[in-house]
Amino acid sequence: MMPGTSSDPIITLIGAGLAGALLAILLSKRGYQVELFERRPDPRKQAGHAGRSINLALSTRGLHGLQHAGLADTVRQRSIKMPGRIIHTLDGETRFQPYGVNPSEVLYAISRAELQHLLLDALAHTPNVHLNFDTKCVEMHLAQQTLTLSHELTGEITTLIRPHVIGTDGSSSAVRSAMLRTPRFDYAQTYLEHGYKELTLPPAPDGTFQLDPHALHIWPRGTYMLIALPNLDCSFTCTLFMPFSGSVSFEALSTSDAITMFFEQQFPDVVPLIPDLVKDFTANPTGSLVTIKCSPWHYRDHLLLLGDAAHAIVPFFGQGMNCAFEDCTELDACIEAETPDWERVFAAFFSRRKPNTDAIADMAIDHYIEMRDHVADPHFLLQKQIEQELAKRFPKQYIPQYSLVTFQRIPYAQAREQARIHERILQQLSAHINHPDQVDWQQAEHLIQRELPLSREGAA
Amino acid sequence: MMPGTSSDPIITLIGAGLAGALLAILLSKRGYQVELFERRPDPRKQAGHAGRSINLALSTRGLHGLQHAGLADTVRQRSIKMPGRIIHTLDGETRFQPYGVNPSEVLYAISRAELQHLLLDALAHTPNVHLNFDTKCVEMHLAQQTLTLSHELTGEITTLIRPHVIGTDGSSSAVRSAMLRTPRFDYAQTYLEHGYKELTLPPAPDGTFQLDPHALHIWPRGTYMLIALPNLDCSFTCTLFMPFSGSVSFEALSTSDAITMFFEQQFPDVVPLIPDLVKDFTANPTGSLVTIKCSPWHYRDHLLLLGDAAHAIVPFFGQGMNCAFEDCTELDACIEAETPDWERVFAAFFSRRKPNTDAIADMAIDHYIEMRDHVADPHFLLQKQIEQELAKRFPKQYIPQYSLVTFQRIPYAQAREQARIHERILQQLSAHINHPDQVDWQQAEHLIQRELPLSREGAA
Repeated sequence: MMPGTSSDPIITLIGAGLAGALLAILLSKRGYQVELFERRPDPRKQAGHAGRSINLALSTRGLHGLQHAGLADTVRQRSIKMPGRIIHTLDGETRFQPYGVNPSEVLYAISRAELQHLLLDALAHTPNVHLNFDTKCVEMHLAQQTLTLSHELTGEITTLIRPHVIGTDGSSSAVRSAMLRTPRFDYAQTYLEHGYKELTLPPAPDGTFQLDPHALHIWPRGTYMLIALPNLDCSFTCTLFMPFSGSVSFEALSTSDAITMFFEQQFPDVVPLIPDLVKDFTANPTGSLVTIKCSPWHYRDHLLLLGDAAHAIVPFFGQGMNCAFEDCTELDACIEAETPDWERVFAAFFSRRKPNTDAIADMAIDHYIEMRDHVADPHFLLQKQIEQELAKRFPKQYIPQYSLVTFQRIPYAQAREQARIHERILQQLSAHINHPDQVDWQQAEHLIQRELPLSREGAA
Repeated sequence: MMPGTSSDPIITLIGAGLAGALLAILLSKRGYQVELFERRPDPRKQAGHAGRSINLALSTRGLHGLQHAGLADTVRQRSIKMPGRIIHTLDGETRFQPYGVNPSEVLYAISRAELQHLLLDALAHTPNVHLNFDTKCVEMHLAQQTLTLSHELTGEITTLIRPHVIGTDGSSSAVRSAMLRTPRFDYAQTYLEHGYKELTLPPAPDGTFQLDPHALHIWPRGTYMLIALPNLDCSFTCTLFMPFSGSVSFEALSTSDAITMFFEQQFPDVVPLIPDLVKDFTANPTGSLVTIKCSPWHYRDHLLLLGDAAHAIVPFFGQGMNCAFEDCTELDACIEAETPDWERVFAAFFSRRKPNTDAIADMAIDHYIEMRDHVADPHFLLQKQIEQELAKRFPKQYIPQYSLVTFQRIPYAQAREQARIHERILQQLSAHINHPDQVDWQQAEHLIQRELPLSREGAA
């Protein structure tokens, strides 16, 4: 850790996960001394993984953040392009759906561990960054600006005075606990009824991919679904999303027989591909899915929450990391605009970012509800078909919500606003019909011109 | 504290506030051994008060709970009847508005301290109740069913094993902290932008009331308001509700001059009645107003949250204590129905009570918004006038929300449902008019018969 005399412009980050590491690089580029304290050991020295990390799908917002750090190309090289999703139906058929309309609109599959290593390696070559592993933040006194740290191996306790601390310590943030003790701090943690479990779909005996690697695979089954993302070693990381309890649930799958039967009935094409299915299923933990919202994110000029620590979201829009990386570039912009007044930096970041992180949190929940309740609803499917046609016919005006969130960088709140307009248009166009052929395209054009004029799209 | 051998049917309550004390009496009546641990000293041995307790307005639900404990008459004798509110306008005029339609529909003003003493005195005469003051719950391990207590005076730490623990320790519940560490516990704390400050309006020099004691006095002023409730000693407890920050706010009233000027401009009739206005205002703390919602309220058969610990609400409907007392009678009913299976007792209480406490929490917020935003809206006032007339013309069918909540015991969620119907009716009746004389009473009768048929009211 650093000497910390008052003349040093030190920024202290608690948590050297994805957001912390990227932010440290951006801060260093601005000339700050940065110190990071990370509770866990250096992951580059560890074997294996925790068995609960959903594979990551990097998209435009995340790449933009990495670009700022000069890392976008390196990361792209270590990832696998996914130009679309492949839907696996119950009868074993597959259907490819492209994500975007042009070749650049693709997702990049990368394992969290891979990306983490890359960022830490970059950090090691970044000047004025001091990275401390195995160091847990056990206490903060905001008024005194003190930070008490415990070394996880030696047990040594240190108390430091630090002027500016940023909590990048994830959804169960210790830094946020300090904020919880400040007056009138709004806080909400809301869990889904669904949990998730990770399973590994290994490479074929000849070392090749067992499924098409250039796609995100989805086995949608109503109240539960399986997804798979490719890894560079030719394996796939699968994630099963399912209710914790109920007739079809993690609770109900309590025996080897029940697990086997469930997979054979619901995902018959997957069973031969995962030889260790029951073992994996039994050994791996069942993760929970939480949305966290709080307000404010900062305490004067002393403390700021960023990334999952400020706004954990559920993974159904694939935006958790992308949103956290966008936080980093947005904070960078606020630093540029408002320093040396750090209270204004933090306040500007909060007021600029909060409506947008609320919006992506809500859109991710909406996606979950859509997946859970609407996917089998014929009227919903009709609207989706009309939407595809609208996007084709009016490509400059009707940009689907998924594209706005995934392949553009317009503020999330604006993307949600556009999506609400889309919903109204689709409701009107689908009101009295039951097939996309029956759409009144004159009415459609009229609605689009009125509700989505080109000037709006220009703003996007 | 009690020996706690496994043969004793001990119920342990953390917190001997209003809800804890009442619940202990009800549990004792059912034959249980009850022990209570209260962090604070015995309030009957203390002089003065904390200076932040809003005076309480006891109504039907609260009285029903006290009735169960045989205390309703005693409490009524120590309180002051308030058959209505007196509105004080800016120009010094007053207007009396009765709360109910018959003489029994009144509120009872009682000081929190008075009621607390009464309940503790009753508890002292209740068999099988062991009350421990100055004893703080510092830790709970739910899986081991242990409870670690610290004696506030001696510092002695004791760890007990207790099978059934009920957290009646209020909005900043220590018991709830243990629940926060259980998996998938939903939790939200949401503060209002308004705070409150208590002021004492003393008796006149001749020892008499300075205002009419048989009313709740209100000085509504848009974004802020003052209220006053009578005390038995001929004083009034006043509470000023106001935003924390902004042009008219607690923050803005930072000097004696500002405070004096504000009161002279906004509450000119009050100024001569509170000689220590500036001293009181400066010395008394500014309280915050929080809504707390969480789910679930219980951990297996071991732990339950009740009252403010489970569902703190804002005071604008005067239902905080009334709701907590209703919790006690509802839990009593679940005990009757479900014991000896305490998990079923707790689960039944939660599923029965949660929709209703959510409803009163939301209604209290709606009341706050109404007060804040709508009170000066002519269309809102028109609807209120139409409502009064509907209640007069259709007394068995159109029972205003305020009466349903305050003078009836229909579940809060049903009261809210009725209020939504009322809103629709009022919207239709007020749509194209600007004076209550213009109401189409035939349409009104038609709407009432259709939306609020007598059979529904019978269910109420």
